[in-house]
Amino acid sequence: MEDNIAQNIYDNPDFFAGYSQLPRQVRGLDGAPEWPAIRAMLPALSGKRVVDLGCGFGWASRWMREQGADSVLGLDVSEKMIQRAKTDTTDPAIEYRIADLDTLDLPPAAFDVAYSALTFHYIHDFARLVRVIHQTLTPGGDFVFTIEHPIFMATSHPDWIVGDDGDKIWPVNGYSVEGERRTDWFAKGVLKHHRTLGTTLNTLIGAGFQIVQVKEFAPTPEQIAENPSLADEMERPMMLLVSAKR
Amino acid sequence: MEDNIAQNIYDNPDFFAGYSQLPRQVRGLDGAPEWPAIRAMLPALSGKRVVDLGCGFGWASRWMREQGADSVLGLDVSEKMIQRAKTDTTDPAIEYRIADLDTLDLPPAAFDVAYSALTFHYIHDFARLVRVIHQTLTPGGDFVFTIEHPIFMATSHPDWIVGDDGDKIWPVNGYSVEGERRTDWFAKGVLKHHRTLGTTLNTLIGAGFQIVQVKEFAPTPEQIAENPSLADEMERPMMLLVSAKR
Repeated sequence: MEDNIAQNIYDNPDFFAGYSQLPRQVRGLDGAPEWPAIRAMLPALSGKRVVDLGCGFGWASRWMREQGADSVLGLDVSEKMIQRAKTDTTDPAIEYRIADLDTLDLPPAAFDVAYSALTFHYIHDFARLVRVIHQTLTPGGDFVFTIEHPIFMATSHPDWIVGDDGDKIWPVNGYSVEGERRTDWFAKGVLKHHRTLGTTLNTLIGAGFQIVQVKEFAPTPEQIAENPSLADEMERPMMLLVSAKR
Repeated sequence: MEDNIAQNIYDNPDFFAGYSQLPRQVRGLDGAPEWPAIRAMLPALSGKRVVDLGCGFGWASRWMREQGADSVLGLDVSEKMIQRAKTDTTDPAIEYRIADLDTLDLPPAAFDVAYSALTFHYIHDFARLVRVIHQTLTPGGDFVFTIEHPIFMATSHPDWIVGDDGDKIWPVNGYSVEGERRTDWFAKGVLKHHRTLGTTLNTLIGAGFQIVQVKEFAPTPEQIAENPSLADEMERPMMLLVSAKR
């Protein structure tokens, strides 16, 4: 089933129960190994109006207010996530709202920074959303986001293979075939939308953004020393981090 | 062995003999399935001064003159390639010169267009070369190049795997480990330098270029109908095509 709205898997009880136990949901930003790399891509936040697209439990929204953001609007399709986010803050400068990013509208030039973490691979019409984000940013505004890396997402075989020499190998196929991908992750048939890296970047450029930085997340030697299982992340990138400027 | 100059495998007799028989060397640009996609990324060439970095037999250099380029400078590390390129034209506005792109210098603001096809993966110090290209372009000048895609180049197992379901799978590993790759291609131990897609783009941006378009070559349905073996190229991109502006 191909919908023109985002699949809201996050309100599926089994999914929500499993997802809530991820280190990054229990420990927050420090539980996400890519967080230091993202933080280095964010602009100074003091006095900025921020929109957090796919805010989940609101960890980043709260952090951005701590960094001096003037206001943060956190949006998420999941009612459960927004409920939990609301219970975790009393800060009146943070507003949380249920919103489907595939049908979202935002007012023109209303934000200085747009941020999104691991959300856009659920979006059906990425080009539409990028246009909405472009027009809601002020000129010179920053757009920083992470998304599942297309090398990770493309494949119909999303599991490691161990080669004859013991190497861990990530099997890629279907890279240039864009569209739906279904995987089992806390629930059966979680729906994602695969786009090539080229399409993601060209969509930004086509909407008027200038590409500032493109990072394919890899752990540092220190992170691997602390958490040896992260070494696998050197073999293929799981996440793409992009910063762009309006 | 890691050299600070590019390995000149092209003057190896066995390599040269094999390489010269590739369809794209026998038939020229029309033998390269990515050529229509590259052509669509090139600016209008009329009256432009062009540098062709890694010009090989000079197919693209000659084509660019036919499109009205004012002059073309073709550079290649291979003496044999430059000799052959020279015998294939009498056009005084095309100059061919032997040059190692790892030690190349070019005069400031001397060219309107820099072009390079499938050469930069042989370059040790890509950041240096990009700075040389940036300063030799006029402001607003265009830089269009192709390079082996890092998904293709990263792996220590550069051969298809056939999955249980018959799917052709490209095995990726070592993606985030940048540096030397050695493969057997018409000769043993051809030396290439792997960089992530992020590094390639950030190097351009860091030198002052603006990214205009990023294409990961995939054949069109018409190309696959004409040459069914091209269908494999949908599974993983072999080539990265980039256009940027000074």
